[in-house]
Amino acid sequence: MIIDKLIENVVRSKNHSVIGLDPRLEYIPQYIKEEELGSTDGYAKGVANSFLRFNKELIDSLYDIVPAVKPQIAFYEQYGPEGLRCFTETCSYARSKGLIVIGDVKRGDIGSTAEGYSDFFLGAKEYSAATDLITINPYLGTDSIAPFIKDCAQNNKGIFVLVKTSNKSSIDIQDLMADGKKIYEHVADLVVELGRAHVGNSGYSFVGAVVGATFKQDAEKLRRQMKQSYFLVPGYGAQGGTAQDAAACFNKDGLGAIVNSSRGIIAAYQSSEFKDRFNEGQFAEAAREAAIKMRDDINQELQKQRKIAW
Amino acid sequence: MIIDKLIENVVRSKNHSVIGLDPRLEYIPQYIKEEELGSTDGYAKGVANSFLRFNKELIDSLYDIVPAVKPQIAFYEQYGPEGLRCFTETCSYARSKGLIVIGDVKRGDIGSTAEGYSDFFLGAKEYSAATDLITINPYLGTDSIAPFIKDCAQNNKGIFVLVKTSNKSSIDIQDLMADGKKIYEHVADLVVELGRAHVGNSGYSFVGAVVGATFKQDAEKLRRQMKQSYFLVPGYGAQGGTAQDAAACFNKDGLGAIVNSSRGIIAAYQSSEFKDRFNEGQFAEAAREAAIKMRDDINQELQKQRKIAW
Repeated sequence: MIIDKLIENVVRSKNHSVIGLDPRLEYIPQYIKEEELGSTDGYAKGVANSFLRFNKELIDSLYDIVPAVKPQIAFYEQYGPEGLRCFTETCSYARSKGLIVIGDVKRGDIGSTAEGYSDFFLGAKEYSAATDLITINPYLGTDSIAPFIKDCAQNNKGIFVLVKTSNKSSIDIQDLMADGKKIYEHVADLVVELGRAHVGNSGYSFVGAVVGATFKQDAEKLRRQMKQSYFLVPGYGAQGGTAQDAAACFNKDGLGAIVNSSRGIIAAYQSSEFKDRFNEGQFAEAAREAAIKMRDDINQELQKQRKIAW
Repeated sequence: MIIDKLIENVVRSKNHSVIGLDPRLEYIPQYIKEEELGSTDGYAKGVANSFLRFNKELIDSLYDIVPAVKPQIAFYEQYGPEGLRCFTETCSYARSKGLIVIGDVKRGDIGSTAEGYSDFFLGAKEYSAATDLITINPYLGTDSIAPFIKDCAQNNKGIFVLVKTSNKSSIDIQDLMADGKKIYEHVADLVVELGRAHVGNSGYSFVGAVVGATFKQDAEKLRRQMKQSYFLVPGYGAQGGTAQDAAACFNKDGLGAIVNSSRGIIAAYQSSEFKDRFNEGQFAEAAREAAIKMRDDINQELQKQRKIAW
């Protein structure tokens, strides 16, 4: 089951983080942009080719020390068909390096529409993307999750359902209180119920949850409520979540969560912390150093809390 | 404002419906599939080319009698970059014929991610899709709607926020009761609040709402709650909603809603009602007849209820 394979990757690399491959033009070194945007094939193709070069160098620099990557599709879709080509090629390249690929797509629809999305992201067709797990939006209810689960079971894939997101206004809907429970707790119940039949050897289900690192107490509560669900945890680093916050998303077995960082890793060479030691030609090395620092930060905190997986 | 232009199109065509351009291989006539899938450029490209031919013939047959089309992106994204190319070309072609293009994309994300989606669907860049309005998922709260509204104001675009969807399990989350109101009513409040500053000459806002035709009483309640929001109404026809149900989504001025039908129109030639009179080569004519029937069905019901716009 894919969730067991994710955990294998985590244990092998001794790393609980996932790198968000969220390319933006301002992160791309000047020399790449000059070469790629100067081509005559159109602007979108030039951007897509820039992103692909950037991503491949990042993957080459990171694949032996991280278990997974998470491309956020919006940054690709923005540039249309060429962008989506870059997305699929990025996914394929990451998978060829042994990485688990989490497509952050937040799709949510019903019936044949959900089947269409699922066929692309969780399918086994020649035209399907090389994503292993994707994120799903639950606002439309069970109908909008079930079609994805069917494909997961068939094609060895998985999903993370949005439960409690890391952004400030997640409280607008997710924190409303209904029948003595917050909406995100109702969604958590749904996730538990839908995931129960799909638990792997590791004890975790391929129906996981997105739980932000920015609301620590909510995360602690959800951790107790959803023992068998793996958490995909946004909000660490740039969004203000600390290792201590993220650690709340882990079980006592030292597993149960994979913590995302995007800009803090892929654009590390531009940060005040790294920019004196790395020039833009060394963006991938800076990313590697930032990824090691993040790995150690989380591992140290987990050790302190005696949540130890190895 | 785009919402005024949508209404102009509605009034000119005396038609409150929007045609869902949701192509699936089983709807495509055999002779098109044989020609396009036989090409040597790969399966996905063959499918995309089939869809594009199908869509263009439908648009040619419908553009003078309907105000808008609504391509659901899942059916295109399913086939990767080639599918997305078909989506963008379909949108451009529909717009070139004077149709309003509603991208049913149900995107929902925050910050720079939302900006990426918005730049593609509601942007004015050379690489932006020719969509005039899109659907938005509100589960992440205000943060996930605001970036889209900014682009709408700048580029004369609009959105429909999912409020109460037409599927059976929409009750799972949307009908939970919090502080004396259902979740979808809380979302409706958000939509009203966010849309207030963006009302056009018609009296309607470019921040609209998705309200299903399958829950008539909910629709009546929402209609009262959201007087200035245009409703995009799924669920008519194939999903079981009647003209009477859909009419609940209209205001007394005979406006306020645009009713979608997809399969019932674009695959009409396969339906028991039309298949004796139309062969597959006449799929576009069958679609036209089905569209006229739907137009008249809704208009008659509105007249009966004295909700008359012309």
